[in-house]
Amino acid sequence: MEAFGKKLKAVREEKKLSQERLSLLCNVSQSHIARTELGQVNTSISHVATYARVLGVTPAQLFDF
Amino acid sequence: MEAFGKKLKAVREEKKLSQERLSLLCNVSQSHIARTELGQVNTSISHVATYARVLGVTPAQLFDF
Repeated sequence: MEAFGKKLKAVREEKKLSQERLSLLCNVSQSHIARTELGQVNTSISHVATYARVLGVTPAQLFDF
Repeated sequence: MEAFGKKLKAVREEKKLSQERLSLLCNVSQSHIARTELGQVNTSISHVATYARVLGVTPAQLFDF
Protein backbone atom coordinates (compact mmCIF):
# COMPACT_ATOMS: atom_id res chain seq x y z
CA MET A 1 0.00 0.00 0.00
CA GLU A 2 2.91 2.31 0.80
CA ALA A 3 4.54 1.77 -2.58
CA PHE A 4 1.22 2.50 -4.31
CA GLY A 5 0.75 5.65 -2.22
CA LYS A 6 4.20 6.95 -3.08
CA LYS A 7 3.60 6.29 -6.79
CA LEU A 8 0.20 8.02 -6.72
CA LYS A 9 1.79 11.07 -5.09
CA ALA A 10 4.69 11.09 -7.57
CA VAL A 11 2.39 10.92 -10.60
CA ARG A 12 0.01 13.53 -9.13
CA GLU A 13 2.94 15.93 -8.53
CA GLU A 14 4.37 15.17 -11.97
CA LYS A 15 1.01 16.27 -13.42
CA LYS A 16 1.16 19.38 -11.20
CA LEU A 17 -2.13 18.58 -9.46
CA SER A 18 -2.76 19.36 -5.82
CA GLN A 19 -4.46 16.76 -3.61
CA GLU A 20 -7.40 19.15 -3.49
CA ARG A 21 -7.62 19.33 -7.30
CA LEU A 22 -7.31 15.54 -7.67
CA SER A 23 -9.96 15.18 -4.98
CA LEU A 24 -12.39 17.38 -6.94
CA LEU A 25 -11.66 15.70 -10.26
CA CYS A 26 -12.03 12.18 -8.83
CA ASN A 27 -14.96 12.99 -6.53
CA VAL A 28 -12.96 11.42 -3.71
CA SER A 29 -12.34 13.19 -0.41
CA GLN A 30 -8.99 14.91 -0.01
CA SER A 31 -8.42 13.06 3.26
CA HIS A 32 -8.90 9.72 1.46
CA ILE A 33 -6.28 10.77 -1.10
CA ALA A 34 -3.91 12.04 1.59
CA ARG A 35 -4.21 8.82 3.61
CA THR A 36 -3.86 6.72 0.42
CA GLU A 37 -0.64 8.55 -0.47
CA LEU A 38 0.62 7.84 3.06
CA GLY A 39 -0.07 4.13 2.56
CA GLN A 40 -2.80 4.17 5.22
CA VAL A 41 -5.69 3.14 2.94
CA ASN A 42 -6.14 -0.24 1.26
CA THR A 43 -7.79 1.42 -1.69
CA SER A 44 -9.92 -0.37 -4.25
CA ILE A 45 -9.30 -1.11 -7.91
CA SER A 46 -12.14 1.20 -8.89
CA HIS A 47 -10.35 4.05 -7.10
CA VAL A 48 -7.14 3.01 -8.91
CA ALA A 49 -9.01 3.21 -12.24
CA THR A 50 -10.42 6.67 -11.36
CA TYR A 51 -7.02 8.06 -10.29
CA ALA A 52 -5.42 6.64 -13.47
CA ARG A 53 -8.11 8.07 -15.75
CA VAL A 54 -7.92 11.57 -14.18
CA LEU A 55 -4.09 11.54 -14.12
CA GLY A 56 -3.96 10.40 -17.73
CA VAL A 57 -2.00 7.22 -17.09
CA THR A 58 -2.90 3.54 -17.20
CA PRO A 59 -3.74 1.67 -13.97
CA ALA A 60 -0.63 -0.44 -14.64
CA GLN A 61 1.53 2.71 -14.53
CA LEU A 62 0.28 3.43 -11.00
CA PHE A 63 1.68 0.02 -10.04
CA ASP A 64 5.00 0.57 -11.83
CA PHE A 65 7.27 0.62 -8.80
CA MET B 1 -13.39 -4.36 -12.33
CA GLU B 2 -14.43 -6.65 -15.18
CA ALA B 3 -11.19 -6.11 -17.08
CA PHE B 4 -9.19 -6.84 -13.93
CA GLY B 5 -11.23 -10.00 -13.32
CA LYS B 6 -10.65 -11.29 -16.82
CA LYS B 7 -6.92 -10.61 -16.52
CA LEU B 8 -6.70 -12.34 -13.14
CA LYS B 9 -8.43 -15.39 -14.61
CA ALA B 10 -6.20 -15.40 -17.71
CA VAL B 11 -2.99 -15.22 -15.66
CA ARG B 12 -4.24 -17.86 -13.19
CA GLU B 13 -5.07 -20.24 -16.05
CA GLU B 14 -1.78 -19.47 -17.76
CA LYS B 15 -0.04 -20.57 -14.54
CA LYS B 16 -2.26 -23.70 -14.53
CA LEU B 17 -3.72 -22.91 -11.09
CA SER B 18 -7.30 -23.70 -10.18
CA GLN B 19 -9.36 -21.12 -8.28
CA GLU B 20 -9.23 -23.52 -5.33
CA ARG B 21 -5.41 -23.69 -5.43
CA LEU B 22 -5.09 -19.89 -5.76
CA SER B 23 -7.55 -19.55 -2.89
CA LEU B 24 -5.39 -21.75 -0.65
CA LEU B 25 -2.13 -20.05 -1.63
CA CYS B 26 -3.56 -16.56 -1.12
CA ASN B 27 -5.62 -17.38 1.98
CA VAL B 28 -8.59 -15.81 0.22
CA SER B 29 -11.93 -17.61 -0.13
CA GLN B 30 -12.58 -19.30 -3.44
CA SER B 31 -15.89 -17.48 -3.74
CA HIS B 32 -14.08 -14.13 -3.39
CA ILE B 33 -11.72 -15.15 -6.21
CA ALA B 34 -14.60 -16.43 -8.36
CA ARG B 35 -16.59 -13.20 -7.88
CA THR B 36 -13.46 -11.09 -8.47
CA GLU B 37 -12.84 -12.90 -11.78
CA LEU B 38 -16.47 -12.20 -12.75
CA GLY B 39 -15.92 -8.50 -12.06
CA GLN B 40 -18.34 -8.56 -9.14
CA VAL B 41 -15.83 -7.53 -6.45
CA ASN B 42 -14.14 -4.14 -6.12
CA THR B 43 -11.04 -5.82 -4.73
CA SER B 44 -8.34 -4.02 -2.79
CA ILE B 45 -4.75 -3.25 -3.74
CA SER B 46 -3.52 -5.58 -0.98
CA HIS B 47 -5.44 -8.43 -2.63
CA VAL B 48 -3.91 -7.37 -5.97
CA ALA B 49 -0.44 -7.55 -4.39
CA THR B 50 -1.17 -11.01 -2.94
CA TYR B 51 -2.52 -12.40 -6.25
CA ALA B 52 0.50 -10.97 -8.10
CA ARG B 53 3.01 -12.40 -5.61
CA VAL B 54 1.45 -15.90 -5.69
CA LEU B 55 1.06 -15.86 -9.49
CA GLY B 56 4.66 -14.71 -9.92
CA VAL B 57 3.81 -11.52 -11.82
CA THR B 58 3.99 -7.84 -10.90
CA PRO B 59 0.85 -5.99 -9.78
CA ALA B 60 1.25 -3.86 -12.92
CA GLN B 61 0.97 -7.00 -15.09
CA LEU B 62 -2.45 -7.74 -13.56
CA PHE B 63 -3.54 -4.34 -14.86
CA ASP B 64 -2.05 -4.85 -18.31
CA PHE B 65 -5.24 -4.89 -20.32
